[in-house]
Amino acid sequence: MAYEEFTIEGRNAVIEALRAGKPIDRLFVLDGCNDGPVSTIKREAKKRDLIVKFVDKDRLDHMSETGHHQGVIAQCAAYEYAEVSDILARAREKGEDPFIILLDNIEDPHNLGAIIRSANLAGAHGVIIPKNRAVGLTATVARTSAGALNYTPVAKVTNLARTIEDLKKEGIWFACADMDGVSMYKQNLTGPIGLVIGNEGEGVSRLVKEKCDYVCAIPMKGDIDSLNASVAAGVLMYEVVRQRS
Amino acid sequence: MAYEEFTIEGRNAVIEALRAGKPIDRLFVLDGCNDGPVSTIKREAKKRDLIVKFVDKDRLDHMSETGHHQGVIAQCAAYEYAEVSDILARAREKGEDPFIILLDNIEDPHNLGAIIRSANLAGAHGVIIPKNRAVGLTATVARTSAGALNYTPVAKVTNLARTIEDLKKEGIWFACADMDGVSMYKQNLTGPIGLVIGNEGEGVSRLVKEKCDYVCAIPMKGDIDSLNASVAAGVLMYEVVRQRS
Repeated sequence: MAYEEFTIEGRNAVIEALRAGKPIDRLFVLDGCNDGPVSTIKREAKKRDLIVKFVDKDRLDHMSETGHHQGVIAQCAAYEYAEVSDILARAREKGEDPFIILLDNIEDPHNLGAIIRSANLAGAHGVIIPKNRAVGLTATVARTSAGALNYTPVAKVTNLARTIEDLKKEGIWFACADMDGVSMYKQNLTGPIGLVIGNEGEGVSRLVKEKCDYVCAIPMKGDIDSLNASVAAGVLMYEVVRQRS
Repeated sequence: MAYEEFTIEGRNAVIEALRAGKPIDRLFVLDGCNDGPVSTIKREAKKRDLIVKFVDKDRLDHMSETGHHQGVIAQCAAYEYAEVSDILARAREKGEDPFIILLDNIEDPHNLGAIIRSANLAGAHGVIIPKNRAVGLTATVARTSAGALNYTPVAKVTNLARTIEDLKKEGIWFACADMDGVSMYKQNLTGPIGLVIGNEGEGVSRLVKEKCDYVCAIPMKGDIDSLNASVAAGVLMYEVVRQRS
């Protein structure tokens, strides 16, 4: 297990973290704040014997890593990456075919957060990111995931192409998103599947693409080149949801 | 027509604007920059008798509204909002049933930009936003739209509910996105359609929702509440694309 220090910022993100039982060290709330979500935070904190510290805005601004704390910051001792085996175990526990999202070097923390959020809601069992070059689980990612990071395991691997090879032995098929592929509406995306989403500028790398069983294209009817990476990921994930339902 | 001053920032956004024939006043490039995209910009500028000014980084940073100019900034005299009738005319010209995206108070410029980008690629004929409270066509929106703003008309209206009423007389049906609706996979989204996407926090407002013919739900299989607004918009737009194809 790898660990990283991080803060959880924003009311919803903190409430979700408390409810999910995340190991929160310290909890800071803007002095004088007493609205609905803050009351919820205080109630949830009490259940867990956590002391809420009321501090002024300067202190919160200084602590904030995202600049969007909305008056609430939780500090965690560590953030836990999952193992790929945890993701497979999660699918087994639910009695479902594995549905995994693999990200080939997503660089923008907002995109990573939004993708983890979509993965949670599309019922994916986990997200796999590469160790190098890509963005990791920063505070911005946690916040943009809107709490999904507390539920959806994210594993970090050294070599994405090798991980795909290993997972193929478990009976998982891999589809990557690329414009030169066959329309996603014409592909069979049921069964155990890994969806590979490429980097914002360069798409899926050649080595990773070669390992994929299908290349899926989102139909493009417009004048510009490509969708935002997190939108493309969401659209593809929901095509899997549709075909599975 | 309403006009707003704005800058176009970033290589791809500027290249798209030049190619689309946008009325660019002045073009600034970082001194010494000479890579592929910059050469393309110089070539496109020459075609239009535009002079490229080479300036230092401080000058660009000072001009930049987004903080992400990537060494290239174009200044436009004005940005043109379309009229709702322009959007309908665009559908007629293409011989297609109107497909319009209506945004009920999107506040985040990154979401607005990403939605315009998706609207372009999903083949929507235009985007309608309300005058008050919502974000307008800022430089950040232009940049996040990845050039789509040059092709997809965006109209600004005083009252979204009244615009929906007017468009119903043109035979357009309206579907809004809301969790308490019927699964989007079970709705008929073919024919002339307006898709209404709600505000990031509050969803679609009551008055607007009452005007809609359908309430569409994106199936939620996870632990958290909702998708990012631009992801939800993209997923819904592509369900329309699928049903129309």
